[in-house]
Amino acid sequence: MGNRTAEIVSIGTELLLGELVDTNAVWIAGELRRLGYFIYYKTTVGDNRARLGETIGRAFKRADLVVTSGGLGPTDDDLTREAIADVCGAVPREDPGLVSQLEAMFAARGRPMPAVNRKQAWLIPGARPLENPIGTAPGWWVEKDGRTIVAMPGPPHEMKRMWNEQVMPALPRGAALLWDTTLHTIGIGEGDVAQILAEFTNTANPSVATYARRHGVDVRVAAGAGEIEAAKALAAPVLATVERRLAKFIYGRDSETLSQSIGKRLASLGQSLAVIESVTGGLVADMLTDTPGASDWLKAGVVAYTRQAKEACGVSPDLLDAHGCVAEETSRAMADAVRQRYGTDWSVATTGVAGPAAMDGKPVGLAFVAVSGPGITRTMRLEWPGERRQVKERTASGALGLLLRLLRGDFEP
Amino acid sequence: MGNRTAEIVSIGTELLLGELVDTNAVWIAGELRRLGYFIYYKTTVGDNRARLGETIGRAFKRADLVVTSGGLGPTDDDLTREAIADVCGAVPREDPGLVSQLEAMFAARGRPMPAVNRKQAWLIPGARPLENPIGTAPGWWVEKDGRTIVAMPGPPHEMKRMWNEQVMPALPRGAALLWDTTLHTIGIGEGDVAQILAEFTNTANPSVATYARRHGVDVRVAAGAGEIEAAKALAAPVLATVERRLAKFIYGRDSETLSQSIGKRLASLGQSLAVIESVTGGLVADMLTDTPGASDWLKAGVVAYTRQAKEACGVSPDLLDAHGCVAEETSRAMADAVRQRYGTDWSVATTGVAGPAAMDGKPVGLAFVAVSGPGITRTMRLEWPGERRQVKERTASGALGLLLRLLRGDFEP
Repeated sequence: MGNRTAEIVSIGTELLLGELVDTNAVWIAGELRRLGYFIYYKTTVGDNRARLGETIGRAFKRADLVVTSGGLGPTDDDLTREAIADVCGAVPREDPGLVSQLEAMFAARGRPMPAVNRKQAWLIPGARPLENPIGTAPGWWVEKDGRTIVAMPGPPHEMKRMWNEQVMPALPRGAALLWDTTLHTIGIGEGDVAQILAEFTNTANPSVATYARRHGVDVRVAAGAGEIEAAKALAAPVLATVERRLAKFIYGRDSETLSQSIGKRLASLGQSLAVIESVTGGLVADMLTDTPGASDWLKAGVVAYTRQAKEACGVSPDLLDAHGCVAEETSRAMADAVRQRYGTDWSVATTGVAGPAAMDGKPVGLAFVAVSGPGITRTMRLEWPGERRQVKERTASGALGLLLRLLRGDFEP
Repeated sequence: MGNRTAEIVSIGTELLLGELVDTNAVWIAGELRRLGYFIYYKTTVGDNRARLGETIGRAFKRADLVVTSGGLGPTDDDLTREAIADVCGAVPREDPGLVSQLEAMFAARGRPMPAVNRKQAWLIPGARPLENPIGTAPGWWVEKDGRTIVAMPGPPHEMKRMWNEQVMPALPRGAALLWDTTLHTIGIGEGDVAQILAEFTNTANPSVATYARRHGVDVRVAAGAGEIEAAKALAAPVLATVERRLAKFIYGRDSETLSQSIGKRLASLGQSLAVIESVTGGLVADMLTDTPGASDWLKAGVVAYTRQAKEACGVSPDLLDAHGCVAEETSRAMADAVRQRYGTDWSVATTGVAGPAAMDGKPVGLAFVAVSGPGITRTMRLEWPGERRQVKERTASGALGLLLRLLRGDFEP
């Protein structure tokens, strides 16, 4: 049992027009990984027999398994069957059993089967049909020279049902079941992460890869082995090293968000939080309230977008006169004011210039965040040029990252 | 000017893992169609130099234009530059100008450039850099044998800005130019839209298509012709009919958001707004502050996630006792309270059950929104089962949709 490889081919001109996002391919990829397949290519191709044949043929030469979706309808531009037949050097023929099934399906709807639908009853030697209980397009399972092509219809609910009931249970498992986990970091750039992990980023198994996301840098650790527990064990020492080296930047793993980590910690401490936002305009509160149970620890949020709103929350007019709305001192005063007003253990404040225009001589992307808590207040200056939305997102993540570090007690100035 | 063809190559192992939907490719495809390019293939390939070179090389043989996104980061597994160099038979060399730009970008952030980032300053003969004002990865524009490769970074914001400012204006146009526009609606379902537009949805040129989005139903009107003005003229009568029939549901066109439409109207009326959010937890304020200049009309936002926070804002404890936190009366009282407290012309309130658990016997997805304005208060009940984030998004859009209709004065009970 060697490494099994698979390719995914998405079929349909509509997928090339810039209107429709192909969700089938990403779903199939996730399923194939769980079965231990390596996927090196995904291709999308339109309803053209020559291009389809070329694409499926190349995939069939490169991979043990080719999974297609789309192009199994009854019309002249549904050409997946013809293309697979071309790849296999075969001629499709009507299968009497499939014709009867299709006719019965139409009869149940009280109408005769249109002549065009007869092509949905085609088969070639080496192909067996995959039943489609919720549509007129049966799939094909084709075996040739020890390789397999699975052709499924494009509508996602038909494809997924066919996969779950008939394809997935019948596919052989790959030799290398993949185990992986993703660590989420904040407060460190991709280049710095790469340097810290330099000796791992060139090894293949286990592998370490970094990805710059809008919320910070993700680090993915993966390993493959014959059994999933062995893969996990193979990854474990590398994962432990990565976790140790990046400890103060890591805020979560896999589906865990920054907000969830903060919520978990506040809940276990029995402490509360208030938020006052200028530049982030509600995004910090929005991120926090994506976490179920946020009302247990998020006592209040204020969007103080204007100077008047900051004053109304208790920030002194003299301080605003002296420093302006975008200043370290102002962020600190905002955090102190909202914490006092709502009597919470912790508070977070943001102020800055979201753009598109500079403000009071301060550049777009300049922001200050402050966190106030029991016996501690810390501020942080951020300066990232960017679009308005990016400035909001980076500042909100920066503020929550600072809060998490203070909650953990691992802050170094 | 013959038919120009283009291929799209999406680069990154993470796109093959079944975790990340590739939104860049569909966006680029739409842009290329508007420029009159035919697209026959889209390929996704992982971070492997040989496979990348093979894929880009094949696309470069088949198409006049190859557009890639991803793989321009600073790490060893960012291999797009190496692969394009392989395809062109060239050796990348550091460009002193690009090195200086990168160093300046890091200096502005107060830290030295890590050594790994130097590869982002590479160029090959025949390549010119595409500036990236909001990230460290410059793109490449490569010309060879009358064909073009455009390599852009993977983060969507960086890619789109580079495309809009530097790539799109410089690309030659194809023969069949597509003109299209998308109308955004709220408050009407896809089935109803389809019925209202029934006679248009089967015609090919101009074409009308509907798409159910998270914020409402989009209607796209498109037409193709040899000149863009001719295409636009062909679409015009159908567009006018669609706009007339859906008038009261349409809030914007193309990149225009609900928040922008509201901001434009408030600014022209010289009126102000306050927001109080329970179930949406800051999302309404976040959406509103995505619009530049929001501080001119958004006077305050309150995230009143708890009963105490609602009371602190002026909602009567008796009313909360009588109706609970999730009730039409409560939403109305919240809107009135926040409008009075901040002295604004308008206010918006949201309350509901975001889930995952039901609350006080009220089901997940039940929400009430209220808008209070000069001489008018209106409430709306929403009930959509869904994930927590969906409930927040639908409720926030519902609240802003109601506000826009009241601002326009076209509300019918």
